Amino acid sequence: MATQLVTTAAELREASARLLAQNAGRSQGLVPTMGALHEGHARLARTAVEQNDVVVASIFVNPLQFGDAVDLDRYPRTLDADLALLEEQGVDLVFAPPVEEVYPGGEPLVRVTAGSLGEKWEGASRPGHFDGALTVVAKLLHYGIPGAGLPATGAFVSGSGGGLPAYRAYFGQKDAQQLALVRRMVADLNFPVEIVAVPTVRSEDGLALSSRNRFLSAEEREAALVLSRALRLLAERANAHRPLDLESAQALVESQPLVGLDYFDVVDPRTLEPLAENCRKVPFRGEGLAIIAAKVGPVRLIDNVPLSS
Amino acid sequence: MATQLVTTAAELREASARLLAQNAGRSQGLVPTMGALHEGHARLARTAVEQNDVVVASIFVNPLQFGDAVDLDRYPRTLDADLALLEEQGVDLVFAPPVEEVYPGGEPLVRVTAGSLGEKWEGASRPGHFDGALTVVAKLLHYGIPGAGLPATGAFVSGSGGGLPAYRAYFGQKDAQQLALVRRMVADLNFPVEIVAVPTVRSEDGLALSSRNRFLSAEEREAALVLSRALRLLAERANAHRPLDLESAQALVESQPLVGLDYFDVVDPRTLEPLAENCRKVPFRGEGLAIIAAKVGPVRLIDNVPLSS
Repeated sequence: MATQLVTTAAELREASARLLAQNAGRSQGLVPTMGALHEGHARLARTAVEQNDVVVASIFVNPLQFGDAVDLDRYPRTLDADLALLEEQGVDLVFAPPVEEVYPGGEPLVRVTAGSLGEKWEGASRPGHFDGALTVVAKLLHYGIPGAGLPATGAFVSGSGGGLPAYRAYFGQKDAQQLALVRRMVADLNFPVEIVAVPTVRSEDGLALSSRNRFLSAEEREAALVLSRALRLLAERANAHRPLDLESAQALVESQPLVGLDYFDVVDPRTLEPLAENCRKVPFRGEGLAIIAAKVGPVRLIDNVPLSS
Repeated sequence: MATQLVTTAAELREASARLLAQNAGRSQGLVPTMGALHEGHARLARTAVEQNDVVVASIFVNPLQFGDAVDLDRYPRTLDADLALLEEQGVDLVFAPPVEEVYPGGEPLVRVTAGSLGEKWEGASRPGHFDGALTVVAKLLHYGIPGAGLPATGAFVSGSGGGLPAYRAYFGQKDAQQLALVRRMVADLNFPVEIVAVPTVRSEDGLALSSRNRFLSAEEREAALVLSRALRLLAERANAHRPLDLESAQALVESQPLVGLDYFDVVDPRTLEPLAENCRKVPFRGEGLAIIAAKVGPVRLIDNVPLSS
């Protein structure tokens, strides 16, 4: 079945209700994106399609989470290609609202605020970024609640023995801090949704896919590989129950002159607090997340890898 | 049917789904309260019962919205009387969670923030109050979504030709700023709920009912009547298309030595911005809200009256 494009919340609700009814739908998945889709997003969408009867992907470049108007303007917009990619994964509905649909009264007055977890790492160099990101995720999670806001007029008729549809939303592990914050928001504010994390997709050479990679020159792209190499080094050491030796991995990154390191650390995957120093001096045990951010040429890149031992 | 008491979000969801199924329920109403219920709350509950198949009232004294631990401690708790009052109105479910159910990890990290609308009037003398209030209202609105968070196992079976239940939440006009902020939160963050405002209930002598009135001495209670008298004066002038003459109404309040006036103004009911000065010098036209706050003895009282002309 062809993917259907809708641009208003009202159309989204009606189309979702119709599809759920047609499919005796027991579950709906939401895949929030900012467009400029790549294979990482395709994996998010495929996972959602595998796990749900009806899948909605949203495409919205959220002005609220860009501190820099230039960065917002140059964020790539590739709607036709995005629609083709989502259709190929079997997505039922694409919600691509204009800014006026999402923020009809201009910037929202009441917002979600990320707290201390939003001020470190990415938040340190992008003040307000996560407040803006969580605010739009809150809105998108509400838009996507299956059937919510519909008057009870029988527009959605559940299948025989039907129940209310389950509701899941899909986020990439690549944006580890965003994922941790969305999980925390859902827990702290009791959103009725299950958050599903989907692993990072990489090029064959290890570079994590990102919509911003297209801005890298060939030379910068080659230099950028040091990020994933340094992360892989830590993952291998963790797997082998060896000390992580973060310092030597960091030296590897710093040996690359085109790469300006911002941060590189091993943290608790939930709180993003740095793990105790001794995790690095003695054989690594437990769960961790190695996170890295660097500027490569004009592009800020982030990557991370889960550690487990 | 007897009102059922539940204390966890999981029990609430299951009991709500069961009741909706039993009643071929097309709508659910939520009445959030802090307990210490009086006839004002009874009117909220009755309105919800009239308009919905299943009604949930919550009783939760939210620590997050009290700046002052003493004020939190002395806030009246009258659970047995509250349950009796809610049962009398025909409420189906009372959700009275302990603090650990609502904030299992201590204070939430991710919160809702009220913005500039939360900093004036009541917010000016209670910093952070509305952030705390909106955060718990966001949680309660999520808890109360009919059937949300339930696995689609057929626990809720809609009636023949059934649709997803409508969802309404009930707030008193008495807390005008809270009402304006909740409406704004629901709009700004797209909560899937309809907010219903219920008019203030007054004693025969005009005093707006409040859980805090019980702390007034007989003399203070008599003095407090000047608040509703001053508001009524403005409403009568508005009805008669006369200038509001706020100054003379304010002089009336200030003539009462037991009353310490905090604010008294005529504002836009949606934005709570003061209406232009000329609304007071010339015959009043349009919609407004007269708001007042004062300390009477040890008790801070608020009241308001809609103006229409």
